[in-house]
Amino acid sequence: MELWYTENHTEESKFSIKVEKQLYSAQTNFQRIDVFESKEFGKFFTLDGLIMVTEKDEFIYHDMIVHIPMASNGNIKNVLVIGGGDGGTVRELTRYKTIEKIDMVEIDEQVVEVCKKYFPSTTSGLSDKRVSLYFQDGLKFVRDAKEGEYDLIIVDSTDPFGPGEGLFTREFYGNCHKALSKDGILVNQHECPYYSDYAYNMQRAHRNIYETFNIAKVYQAHIPTYPSGHWLFGFASKTIDPIKDLKEEEWLKHNLDTKYYNLDIHKGCFALPTYVKKLLEQSHHE
Amino acid sequence: MELWYTENHTEESKFSIKVEKQLYSAQTNFQRIDVFESKEFGKFFTLDGLIMVTEKDEFIYHDMIVHIPMASNGNIKNVLVIGGGDGGTVRELTRYKTIEKIDMVEIDEQVVEVCKKYFPSTTSGLSDKRVSLYFQDGLKFVRDAKEGEYDLIIVDSTDPFGPGEGLFTREFYGNCHKALSKDGILVNQHECPYYSDYAYNMQRAHRNIYETFNIAKVYQAHIPTYPSGHWLFGFASKTIDPIKDLKEEEWLKHNLDTKYYNLDIHKGCFALPTYVKKLLEQSHHE
Repeated sequence: MELWYTENHTEESKFSIKVEKQLYSAQTNFQRIDVFESKEFGKFFTLDGLIMVTEKDEFIYHDMIVHIPMASNGNIKNVLVIGGGDGGTVRELTRYKTIEKIDMVEIDEQVVEVCKKYFPSTTSGLSDKRVSLYFQDGLKFVRDAKEGEYDLIIVDSTDPFGPGEGLFTREFYGNCHKALSKDGILVNQHECPYYSDYAYNMQRAHRNIYETFNIAKVYQAHIPTYPSGHWLFGFASKTIDPIKDLKEEEWLKHNLDTKYYNLDIHKGCFALPTYVKKLLEQSHHE
Repeated sequence: MELWYTENHTEESKFSIKVEKQLYSAQTNFQRIDVFESKEFGKFFTLDGLIMVTEKDEFIYHDMIVHIPMASNGNIKNVLVIGGGDGGTVRELTRYKTIEKIDMVEIDEQVVEVCKKYFPSTTSGLSDKRVSLYFQDGLKFVRDAKEGEYDLIIVDSTDPFGPGEGLFTREFYGNCHKALSKDGILVNQHECPYYSDYAYNMQRAHRNIYETFNIAKVYQAHIPTYPSGHWLFGFASKTIDPIKDLKEEEWLKHNLDTKYYNLDIHKGCFALPTYVKKLLEQSHHE
């Protein structure tokens, strides 16, 4: 008997992974979690039937959501991570000795518990002394944050359905703006431009960020296990431009070994295909 | 009843497209051709069970295989296309009024016939007066070409199995080198770095090109219907560097409307992830 995990990318396309066995399955108060083991991708877990992390390529997503903002501002000391229950984002952040405080706000404690058991390689940073874990709604947490409290906010969320929904609204981005220091940066996962349902979410997120921040850019990465493999991230700030303000020498001093990110990628990943640029520009006028 | 086309990307992963109907199927002397119709991707065709062209995203592959070399050298007059039976590469080339001659060498006449019938939008350039079609083995054609006859050779081939196999060998690249003018450019489809079987082919192709040409670079694009969505192209030349020699002003004068390619993408697409750089560097020493 063959066991296959199948994810619908749209109603008319799907991606399947041959599974050795299912390791875990549970319905939490917020979502369904499943953990599988495969030969090709190692262990992987899904939330509500969508792949979040595979051992094979989680490094791509986590490199790109962390090192792009960290190399754009050399003075990041206080960081807020919203979502990111698998711990991969915090793990990459803890590699920077210059960071003093990392608050992580995950709505679903069970995601963290499950990942601690099955994904020790992504959760390894959660025991770092600088990390505080809050099992709360990120939307409310940011509403209550002090003005200018964070130098970096990373929104490492699911798609804008279910628990992730509020993290794509103008109210949320407005509260992030307030909670950020003068040179603060907001980065968020920004969906994919290729399939129209995802592209619609991307446009909505971008419009809301663009209306809130002086600088609102989008960058891309190749993440083969996400729909279409073409994944976007949003970069927003009151003052920092990720290309003009890139701190090459400073970043190199951290001496980090990264499997996807490098300074060429930093400069190259903001170059978007014409059709993506057009989708983003359209959203400014809606 | 639902009809799905399924492509194995590896033994343990596969991609499926819901199909409205199959339009054509035949075994030629060289390979199997199938044409399908789908809602999400429009019409698409496969060779030996691998997607070659979908109406939805063929523009990405054809933009990137043509406009990168064309913008890197403003004096391209004579072009050779090997493979590319769907016509998309020639279509993009014919948009340049400065090109004088395009020879296209496709081993399988039936691919061209089938595409003329089902993909008039990709084959539209084949009737251009500058185009000569040769139904021959590209390997032999290049062996017999005059020295310095072409300013650009584009290898728009299948993977290195079956009819495409010879187009990844050192002998073939050596003959391309001879057939190219002093500032000539060779571009080829270069497989994907993410899945190990493809990455092995990529390393082999790169090693052979690297040993033949002074300049041997690799660039990438997001092509969602190819395995992993992370596709590479090789750029090789005796003299031309695709970044240093980029002719921005000259290219803009052609006034081409392109859906994927633009001058930012040109500069950004040569920035490769660290793991891909390492795979390419390894291949130099094998």
